[in-house]
Amino acid sequence: MNGLPQTNFQPEDAINPVVRLAALASEDMGAVETLITERMDSQRSPLIPSVAQHLVNAGGKRIRPLITVAAARMLGYDGSGHHALAAAVEFIHSATLLHDDVVDDSQLRRGKAPANQVYGNAHSVLVGDFLFARSFILMVDAGSMQALHVLSRAAAVIAEGEVRQLEAVRDIDLSREAYLGIIEAKTAALFAAAAQVSPILSGAGPEMEHALETYGRELGLAFQLVDDALDYGGLAADLGKNVGDDFREGKMTLPLVLAVGEADDEERAFWTRVITEPNGQQDEDLEAAVAILKRRGALDATLAAARAHAANAVEALNAAPKNVWSDSLAALAEFVVERAY
Amino acid sequence: MNGLPQTNFQPEDAINPVVRLAALASEDMGAVETLITERMDSQRSPLIPSVAQHLVNAGGKRIRPLITVAAARMLGYDGSGHHALAAAVEFIHSATLLHDDVVDDSQLRRGKAPANQVYGNAHSVLVGDFLFARSFILMVDAGSMQALHVLSRAAAVIAEGEVRQLEAVRDIDLSREAYLGIIEAKTAALFAAAAQVSPILSGAGPEMEHALETYGRELGLAFQLVDDALDYGGLAADLGKNVGDDFREGKMTLPLVLAVGEADDEERAFWTRVITEPNGQQDEDLEAAVAILKRRGALDATLAAARAHAANAVEALNAAPKNVWSDSLAALAEFVVERAY
Repeated sequence: MNGLPQTNFQPEDAINPVVRLAALASEDMGAVETLITERMDSQRSPLIPSVAQHLVNAGGKRIRPLITVAAARMLGYDGSGHHALAAAVEFIHSATLLHDDVVDDSQLRRGKAPANQVYGNAHSVLVGDFLFARSFILMVDAGSMQALHVLSRAAAVIAEGEVRQLEAVRDIDLSREAYLGIIEAKTAALFAAAAQVSPILSGAGPEMEHALETYGRELGLAFQLVDDALDYGGLAADLGKNVGDDFREGKMTLPLVLAVGEADDEERAFWTRVITEPNGQQDEDLEAAVAILKRRGALDATLAAARAHAANAVEALNAAPKNVWSDSLAALAEFVVERAY
Repeated sequence: MNGLPQTNFQPEDAINPVVRLAALASEDMGAVETLITERMDSQRSPLIPSVAQHLVNAGGKRIRPLITVAAARMLGYDGSGHHALAAAVEFIHSATLLHDDVVDDSQLRRGKAPANQVYGNAHSVLVGDFLFARSFILMVDAGSMQALHVLSRAAAVIAEGEVRQLEAVRDIDLSREAYLGIIEAKTAALFAAAAQVSPILSGAGPEMEHALETYGRELGLAFQLVDDALDYGGLAADLGKNVGDDFREGKMTLPLVLAVGEADDEERAFWTRVITEPNGQQDEDLEAAVAILKRRGALDATLAAARAHAANAVEALNAAPKNVWSDSLAALAEFVVERAY
């Protein structure tokens, strides 16, 4: 608090680059939303769109499709294939979220789930499969076999990354390098593909493809690292709602990897108990964990890594045309990190 | 027993058309197996191929890829795209089986699963996703956007059919028509696509595509109806292992649909208890159910329906060239029904 009078006005509303980019791309994004709504419909099962809607409409910021649309516009693309690909990217993302519910819940619940939640698992799996399949129909509509290849490869890599992450649960000796490999696969690969398909569609050539793939991947890494820090309350270490999920699941993320690397004997004993032992945690351990993370500068270091990746994303845009769209993409990369403060 | 001396020789080994077709197509199927092994490999996670292998190698008869290969050969196709598409079809099938484990288990276990089985759910979901994504990369390799469209549409339809089936669990008033709609989606759509992609690849024209799509769909319907009858022991009503799964899950299949339609008051009360009530079954109920099914001729009628669909499949081949491959495809359709006796 700096003594200024408090108002309800949130300065970040005015400058939030996601909002600004969505406004700039409102015509394109309207077309993308129409496609999303149309293609999640099912004549055979009215239940599918209601399950899918629950997720697809759930306040998602549509960051990935925004990147596809903005990259296409930046390159002067004037067809409509970017709408189908942007919707396809969002469907892959939504399918992944639906399946993550099953994957993560199965670790948390340990068989204690009530029947209705278990029944929900079946729907999460099947509606995820439906959206995934429909994403490929959208790609067919866009008509680019090369874009299809990039997105199907990304989908396979995401699954690989998630399996690797499962294997790394409770592994306190996970290296920084191995961890970055996991998030490059499970998170950054889809951002990279979302950005890369637009130069493919525009026929902008391999150099531009490489530049935008790099932009997407680096932005995706920054995005995930910020998420990792926020799960421990971010730099403010604000332990409000929605924090501590990774910790409770014994999920290794960069803050933990860094803190374990710096741990003294006492801290090492603490991490061993709370992370490697399935029932080793007590209520107060999250607070103790955050205290160690701060003492060891692990949240600072994680956010510094995020900033570096965001800077790489911005730098990759140097190879791209300079216009309002590339400016927006650069602002987006910077914003991804700012939200942690 | 007709008094002849018994030997270990099983006459069906010699005439089994799946075995005969696999021998006829051994060169093609060798190439398909190589692709299957290569493409389930993962540099990022060695765990993936071991989970996938468990399923993909688990004594599958490869009926779907056999259909793709035989249809391509029947039409004189001399490229190699049919190998990639056949492998893609098997991957979609395997992904569906992996996800079905989660979907079906979640109904059966009702939260009683031990942790290792729940952990297994996560892997089933993710390895299924991996195979599904890899199937699309295989389709890209085959290079036909139209084949890709047919297979991605089939994948979406399968998910729709499975959701419809979930909704129909414990619904004893499910109509025969609605049930056939469900299995056309969840089972027959992939057989139809497996057969249809070959005329697409061969450029054989829409009429041949229609003929083979019909062949595949009708064979798929026959296949599922035979499975339905076998789950109650088939015509022999042999209640050995592996029967009664559908019954225990309250899953409506054609034998039940037909028997409920003919039920007197007492039988209706029985079906209401054992099917609609989640915990309504006792150990002896499966035997009682089979007795009613036989009394009402429901297993006979189900197999008669299967025979009719198999005959439709054979008839659809009239539009195709007459050669050793079309003969094998016809024999395959007939065999699918014979295995119930």
